[in-house]
Amino acid sequence: MQIGIVGLGLIGGSLGLDLRSQGHQVWGMSRNQTTCEQAVTIGAVDFASLDLDGLGCNYFNTDLVIVCTPIASILPTIKAIAPHLASTTIISDVGSVKSAIAVPAEKLCDRFVGGHPMAGTAFSGIAAAERNLFRDSPFVLTPTKNSDREACEIMRSLWVSLGAVIYECSPEVHDRAVAWISHLPILISAGLILACDRESDQAIGQLAQNLASSGFRDTSRVGGGNPELGRLIAENNQTALLASLKEYQQVLQNLISQVESGDWQSLESSLQQAHQIRQLYSN
Amino acid sequence: MQIGIVGLGLIGGSLGLDLRSQGHQVWGMSRNQTTCEQAVTIGAVDFASLDLDGLGCNYFNTDLVIVCTPIASILPTIKAIAPHLASTTIISDVGSVKSAIAVPAEKLCDRFVGGHPMAGTAFSGIAAAERNLFRDSPFVLTPTKNSDREACEIMRSLWVSLGAVIYECSPEVHDRAVAWISHLPILISAGLILACDRESDQAIGQLAQNLASSGFRDTSRVGGGNPELGRLIAENNQTALLASLKEYQQVLQNLISQVESGDWQSLESSLQQAHQIRQLYSN
Repeated sequence: MQIGIVGLGLIGGSLGLDLRSQGHQVWGMSRNQTTCEQAVTIGAVDFASLDLDGLGCNYFNTDLVIVCTPIASILPTIKAIAPHLASTTIISDVGSVKSAIAVPAEKLCDRFVGGHPMAGTAFSGIAAAERNLFRDSPFVLTPTKNSDREACEIMRSLWVSLGAVIYECSPEVHDRAVAWISHLPILISAGLILACDRESDQAIGQLAQNLASSGFRDTSRVGGGNPELGRLIAENNQTALLASLKEYQQVLQNLISQVESGDWQSLESSLQQAHQIRQLYSN
Repeated sequence: MQIGIVGLGLIGGSLGLDLRSQGHQVWGMSRNQTTCEQAVTIGAVDFASLDLDGLGCNYFNTDLVIVCTPIASILPTIKAIAPHLASTTIISDVGSVKSAIAVPAEKLCDRFVGGHPMAGTAFSGIAAAERNLFRDSPFVLTPTKNSDREACEIMRSLWVSLGAVIYECSPEVHDRAVAWISHLPILISAGLILACDRESDQAIGQLAQNLASSGFRDTSRVGGGNPELGRLIAENNQTALLASLKEYQQVLQNLISQVESGDWQSLESSLQQAHQIRQLYSN
């Protein structure tokens, strides 16, 4: 296939490496000229440009464009490129929120099908791109009832070919599921960091920093991540995230009540339950 | 020195390995005969027994006994052994809460000085014991105003010799500091697991489990740990933990309000703040 990748960061670059190694012809687009050049150099794309015009006639026969920009740029990107593509071209994306993108994207492109590869590394940017990033990682395909079925099957086959484990659900179901395991943890974890900072005794605050070890680091990791990404996720998955936060708030209140009343038996049962439930997530 | 270790698990066993390699004579005590035998076999102790009597005359000249049992057994252990030891024998412990132990322990032993080595691995038991476990890890020495200064200096030198980074503070200061970075994370993290379990749509709950990746696993790790240890920590550090939980609850309420009102600018500032503060803990 002739495939376009818009946004040449970790995900876009890694995708390009894998797709080209399978014989697809891949063009890339990035706002940054250096990134375009790097993407060509590492072999993530056959050629790259700052815009469609720069690709010359190369994009006319594009079968599929995958938008790999940050969340906030996905819809503007689709709006900018869709009018110039053939009506048969499929557009997809890799954003970590789906409902907020799918509804307007479908108005811009008849053959839009959203997706979310749940893979990554601690690094970002084209320099971090690597082969087989998606192998054995979940990929969620999120068609709506309006989605072109043939486009869905093409997308599914493509991600299967990259070694991903495919799940298919509506954008709404995706957003509710990831609110629990991906978006809620960000706020819970950020809250931990912000709470620790409220220790009124400076010496104790300093000691806490000195003593913090792997337990604190793990629990605070996602909360200390990219603030803009966290904000965009919350902004674009507000309803599901808020529902998760309110459930969490109730659970936390229960735990606090157990500690406050010294009901250690109940607290131990809660922790026992948490211990058991977590096994279900440990794959 | 002649050193006794009561409780031959990961910490007690590792301590024995290091102390013996430095030429100290080390006896061990465990409730479990097999553990006693294993400890001798791996070289963590010179000899071991189920009780003081079993040690024969070997314990009379003990300079220092370090109690490495689970928290709930520390005071009962000190109560059982202190009357049989010389009045000059120092008793210490490695429990992760300090105030609840120090006050009664000082009534049982004139030369009690508590401590808390903040080291560990994912494993437990004598089979997991390893050399140099404490190297470059924090060790908190927690004397009170009643503590014997010479005993404190002996303890300090001992842990320095194991390569630990020594901090000294009162049991109360220790407990407040670790409430933030060690005990609060357990409950926050357990709450995440319990909240996810409250998803009312079973298919979404199942999808969440399938999609959970490193972000969820890291944030939920300490909450899915040993329930009994979590309960004992809460029970023995109730005041400081509760204070931390209430601060956390307020911070969480702020974040929820930001999401609920769609105040994305404020949410991003909060996340930015969390991002920056976390750098202070990243050593």
